Amino acid sequence: MSLPEGFLSALDAAVEDVSTDPVALAAAALDRSGVVPESPPSVLVRPVTVDEVRETLRLASHYVVPVVPRGGGSGVAGAAVAGPGQVVLDVSGLDQIKEIDAVDQIAIVGPGVVTATLEAAAGRVGLRYAPDPASAAISTIGGNIATNAGGLRCVKYGVTRDAVLGLDVVLADGTLLSTGRQTLKGVAGLDLTSLFVGSEGTLGVVVGATLRLRPLPEQTLTVAAAFSDVEAAARACAAVAAARREPSMLELLDERTLRVVDRAQGTTYSQRGGALVIAQADGPAAGLEITAIAEVLGKEATWVEQGVDEESSARLVEARRLALPSIEAFGSVLIEDICVPRSRLAEAFRRVAEIGDRHGVRIYSFAHAGDGNLHPLVGYPRGPVPAGVVAAGDEIFGLALELGGTVTGEHGVGLLKRDWLAREIGPEALAVHRTLKAALDPVGILNPGKGY
Amino acid sequence: MSLPEGFLSALDAAVEDVSTDPVALAAAALDRSGVVPESPPSVLVRPVTVDEVRETLRLASHYVVPVVPRGGGSGVAGAAVAGPGQVVLDVSGLDQIKEIDAVDQIAIVGPGVVTATLEAAAGRVGLRYAPDPASAAISTIGGNIATNAGGLRCVKYGVTRDAVLGLDVVLADGTLLSTGRQTLKGVAGLDLTSLFVGSEGTLGVVVGATLRLRPLPEQTLTVAAAFSDVEAAARACAAVAAARREPSMLELLDERTLRVVDRAQGTTYSQRGGALVIAQADGPAAGLEITAIAEVLGKEATWVEQGVDEESSARLVEARRLALPSIEAFGSVLIEDICVPRSRLAEAFRRVAEIGDRHGVRIYSFAHAGDGNLHPLVGYPRGPVPAGVVAAGDEIFGLALELGGTVTGEHGVGLLKRDWLAREIGPEALAVHRTLKAALDPVGILNPGKGY
Repeated sequence: MSLPEGFLSALDAAVEDVSTDPVALAAAALDRSGVVPESPPSVLVRPVTVDEVRETLRLASHYVVPVVPRGGGSGVAGAAVAGPGQVVLDVSGLDQIKEIDAVDQIAIVGPGVVTATLEAAAGRVGLRYAPDPASAAISTIGGNIATNAGGLRCVKYGVTRDAVLGLDVVLADGTLLSTGRQTLKGVAGLDLTSLFVGSEGTLGVVVGATLRLRPLPEQTLTVAAAFSDVEAAARACAAVAAARREPSMLELLDERTLRVVDRAQGTTYSQRGGALVIAQADGPAAGLEITAIAEVLGKEATWVEQGVDEESSARLVEARRLALPSIEAFGSVLIEDICVPRSRLAEAFRRVAEIGDRHGVRIYSFAHAGDGNLHPLVGYPRGPVPAGVVAAGDEIFGLALELGGTVTGEHGVGLLKRDWLAREIGPEALAVHRTLKAALDPVGILNPGKGY
Repeated sequence: MSLPEGFLSALDAAVEDVSTDPVALAAAALDRSGVVPESPPSVLVRPVTVDEVRETLRLASHYVVPVVPRGGGSGVAGAAVAGPGQVVLDVSGLDQIKEIDAVDQIAIVGPGVVTATLEAAAGRVGLRYAPDPASAAISTIGGNIATNAGGLRCVKYGVTRDAVLGLDVVLADGTLLSTGRQTLKGVAGLDLTSLFVGSEGTLGVVVGATLRLRPLPEQTLTVAAAFSDVEAAARACAAVAAARREPSMLELLDERTLRVVDRAQGTTYSQRGGALVIAQADGPAAGLEITAIAEVLGKEATWVEQGVDEESSARLVEARRLALPSIEAFGSVLIEDICVPRSRLAEAFRRVAEIGDRHGVRIYSFAHAGDGNLHPLVGYPRGPVPAGVVAAGDEIFGLALELGGTVTGEHGVGLLKRDWLAREIGPEALAVHRTLKAALDPVGILNPGKGY
């Protein structure tokens, strides 16, 4: 697909870094979803100022050219996949940490700041950015905002939305909009901030964010427990919530995941039991909490170990950290991301395994168990996705809805879950989505075909 | 203003409880803002089913009749004030608690459920609804959602938005929309839930809500400290945050407030100092937290007392609980609700007092100090609002913006703060508000003239 006549030269005149280099375009076409467009996008724009973003969108609206906003490219749902005739708007160059205010505990940053970079900068003044996506080393704040990213600490500290106080957003016509505030509370007008968080680049392009930081806890303590099977482990996690404990992390790994970690890393996790739970507690009550959590987990566990210092704690968390790379070491995976009410987590694990057996595919499951957020990873040999993998994935989505859950807890809809989104939210909600989209992006240039 | 021909009879045929009784209309015209419409609304509808709400809005859109949704009538910004030609849609009859799930810690309720009623029901299974507006005894969940109400515990547990997982909303044309989910996390589609929370009845009428409950803490401990003046007290509150403590309540009362409480209640708070700070901590770390907070407050305090049991703790909190009724016992008040970055709170207190002096009006100030949310109450004798009171109120709004804050931390915009909203959010954001409003309520029947 070619670009409208005059668009590229207008863009070239308005923005410094405009590229049609095939190598750059091929790289800018993909995220980590595994989706490959029929051919690469037509042009890559790398703005370094807000004005360049405004100018790009103004021209795109004028010439009716679709724009795919892009951060670190670490998304797994396909929201940043770009194809022919499309402009990739890579905002990773807007990567300034403009301010970290230790007294008011806020940060003002550009969208291109890498999550781990912000975390480190906040840490130097005794604070932290609480959401901790597993992709922190490569994901950007803008990408976190676009997907409303979750992470391991969300069970205590909430998701990205809970950490965003205000945004600067460039709308489809190039208007620069500021939303939200710099205060902890505020109800002046509609919550536009939350509308843009998680909108996957379909309503505007985030060019700045005011984030809430939190104090670094004085201590973080860890306990790991093994169980005979994954259902017992899931029941134990539900019991932690029922006992009104407040873990800062509560992760669950199934036997197949433990085995692949052992195989890839030379560890022996799978010898301890058929499922592993790793819990952390932080803050002044960390000692009390972790003891209480260990006691709850201990009731049905086959093995329990508490970390005694930072090093032994890190060792206990390692299995979780290594799960995805270990699985990916042996092939490709379709990453699912369902979330169910916590009380249904044991059932979800059991039935996901049954789905895998029925379709003869290998499913590795691990979960942010404290939130009911389960990641079944359907593995397959490198190459095209086998039909059984797609069918199993579809059944897992259906299971999520049947259990009163959602088809995506933290990864987003992107390209991969569009059909399922419609089934989850229903025709009335879908119509409202499209009404809002048409109101804010009447020409329809912003990430068309993604989300809803 | 009369209603369009045929509207009333159509309404009468569709909804059981439709009233034009003057006494009922006069009562339904007002909230607690003090705003009195030129004459009462034309009709009062009290639905007891969702279908009756849908039918009312469908007819209102068809006949182009403005609708003012109403809950407990406890709002203080004028969002529920209704005038001639308008329908008051009182949803307080939709007051069913449909489900409280102790395992998944959620409640499914109608909008008419009174906050305190839900709190009590949750308490019976060891849970609580965390947001605690001071109006809990009379405010409804629907009203809390419409204003995104705050409260004393928000410093630790967040505001209403943080407790709402999903909504059932009737749109202007009568469509029933379900938003959100029953799980703790979820990113399927745009965050429509947050768009309706705090929208003051301008985008739809909430007819059901799925709320997140939290465990009742095992213990709540209290400390109170007096200071020589309000600036010292505000500095001490900032020091609590800087020391990375996590109070579940952190309130500050100025000298004038303490004096009026003493005068109304026969207490002696004002003898202890020129300002009072009351802090609570809860949960397993309550003991550690309250000791640390007491230590921070103690550095500059003239008097410190820790509650040793529930009774003595309740006594320490009493001054805060009695502040508003004590002030109202002696006249009328204009209730302001600014929020500033915590680091500016001391300056805000000082300059609010200067504004009062300059205009010769009496300003009582107290604050949810942990959030930077300050309530200056401008007092005046019963009767019409004096010009000096209005002028002082306006200057306080200007001060909030100058200090990087907002004109409303938790009460909403309603009728009273419309001009200031426009100044706070700017023309671009205001235009986006109106674009979204026009998209969702094209006829413009939902609470016109309120908010934005």
